[in-house]
Amino acid sequence: MTDSTVFRGVLAPVLTPFDESLEPDAERFVAHARWLLEDGCTGLAPFGTTGEAVSLGLGERQRLLEALVEGGVDPGVLMPGTGLCSIPDTVALTRAAVEAGCGGVMVLPPFYYKGVSDDGIYRHFAEVIDRVGDARLRVYLYHIPPQAVTGFSVELVGRLIHDYPDTVVGLKDSSGDWSNTKALLDAYPGFATLSGSEVFLLDNLRGGGAGCITATGNINARAIRAVFDGWEGPDADALQDGITRFRQIVQGQPVIPMLKQVIAHYRDDALWARVRPPLPAGVDAAAGKALIAQLESEFGFRLGETAAAA
Amino acid sequence: MTDSTVFRGVLAPVLTPFDESLEPDAERFVAHARWLLEDGCTGLAPFGTTGEAVSLGLGERQRLLEALVEGGVDPGVLMPGTGLCSIPDTVALTRAAVEAGCGGVMVLPPFYYKGVSDDGIYRHFAEVIDRVGDARLRVYLYHIPPQAVTGFSVELVGRLIHDYPDTVVGLKDSSGDWSNTKALLDAYPGFATLSGSEVFLLDNLRGGGAGCITATGNINARAIRAVFDGWEGPDADALQDGITRFRQIVQGQPVIPMLKQVIAHYRDDALWARVRPPLPAGVDAAAGKALIAQLESEFGFRLGETAAAA
Repeated sequence: MTDSTVFRGVLAPVLTPFDESLEPDAERFVAHARWLLEDGCTGLAPFGTTGEAVSLGLGERQRLLEALVEGGVDPGVLMPGTGLCSIPDTVALTRAAVEAGCGGVMVLPPFYYKGVSDDGIYRHFAEVIDRVGDARLRVYLYHIPPQAVTGFSVELVGRLIHDYPDTVVGLKDSSGDWSNTKALLDAYPGFATLSGSEVFLLDNLRGGGAGCITATGNINARAIRAVFDGWEGPDADALQDGITRFRQIVQGQPVIPMLKQVIAHYRDDALWARVRPPLPAGVDAAAGKALIAQLESEFGFRLGETAAAA
Repeated sequence: MTDSTVFRGVLAPVLTPFDESLEPDAERFVAHARWLLEDGCTGLAPFGTTGEAVSLGLGERQRLLEALVEGGVDPGVLMPGTGLCSIPDTVALTRAAVEAGCGGVMVLPPFYYKGVSDDGIYRHFAEVIDRVGDARLRVYLYHIPPQAVTGFSVELVGRLIHDYPDTVVGLKDSSGDWSNTKALLDAYPGFATLSGSEVFLLDNLRGGGAGCITATGNINARAIRAVFDGWEGPDADALQDGITRFRQIVQGQPVIPMLKQVIAHYRDDALWARVRPPLPAGVDAAAGKALIAQLESEFGFRLGETAAAA
């Protein structure tokens, strides 16, 4: 197994801004990505659930990835989502990411058919990896049963690691179930297990995990990074408590529209608040203001100026 | 509301054959589609769940649709599935279908995000319809919560009919829940409600519905058509009992691989048994033989020679 250290740290699944016509706004997207790396992210995972990836067309994803690289983002720190329900479309996006020099790709299981077997998912991934056929490919399995329903069992992960040891190098666990993360950490040391929420960051690092890829990283990367940098230090638990509380406050809301409202507020840019259907357009602006007020009063929060939690 | 009669009858969601490399086999696909129309189908719904549509790439669907039309299938009887999670890809497939002259399109709701609101789904469809912007477009909503999880509430259907009366003209109900079909029939007379299974065909027709789009139509269209043709006659219930029993026997199996095994058997063409991942490759051939033997002994079944049920 390749010991992947490229994506050890804190990754944000980059939010995707949309313009008045609901088209992706590449300029704002690239600017946000660059800022996230300044704010503390060690890497970026564009085209995740938080980035409304499946609401983007195939061509849109490819153009936005090109825009990131042309916009000066080091492709080595990028782990774009490339998983769709079909083998050919997944191959096309994955190949484009590898050829752009991306450090890895984050790949959903085929998520339409329900009740499919581990073997069916295995064969889907084997086809994708074989068809891409590139030694540079590094796959991070994207386990997110709350949305995809279909997921990766611990046994299936082991089979993929066994058969593709240099390619299947990590997993993002967005199950919200710490016992699942723990089972992966225990079963596959050296495999890059990333938490899908910063709530589990410290536990994950202590268990040998690689870090986290978290929606809240879009606004709170600096504080999350402080936990990563200080996880072996004396303040680790206190720092973790702060980012956990922050996350819990945001979590009570429709997360994606709320994160966009926070960015729209601090950048004084109403366009940032737009989401593509089927996500809800009608998030109450007052709820957004209330959330921002709470974050400011409890954490002294300012976008990009967040200190480690009080 | 347009009173759509084009798709009154029995439609098969055309199975998609794959070759040794798991590529779609256009020649067998077209031959099967043409045969289905001879066997009793009044229309065809390529690229449904049974056709493993979401396992096909965008380009593959477009090439297969072209192959059908070039192969002599009247596009007016075609209702291809064009619904994907993203607006732009759904628009691309839908526009291609309209421009090819298809009588309608069958459109899934965006099926990745779970727990989305009716309003979010409404806005997705409104964007798709507005962007296609073609008066010839006829949309059949594809309600299949067992796979898509997300579906269309009766209220949402009403809102779409109200706002797009000439465009949103029907629905395929694959909920498996007769009370849902009944609610639609009662609420929206003249709207083309199609059952997702022939089990409900007679009830649906008696309630004012348009017919059915059913997986089993790939092998048993003639008998299903007999129910449609004779639904007001004295034998209607007996005919319905026969196709219901036939369906129940097939239903106990992984349906798509089993239907393909039946076709592979009668055409003496092993290639027809192949499915794309994530569907299961390992369906027991012995189970296929047993199913065929049961259909032959109970119904005198031969592919393409099925009489109305005994």
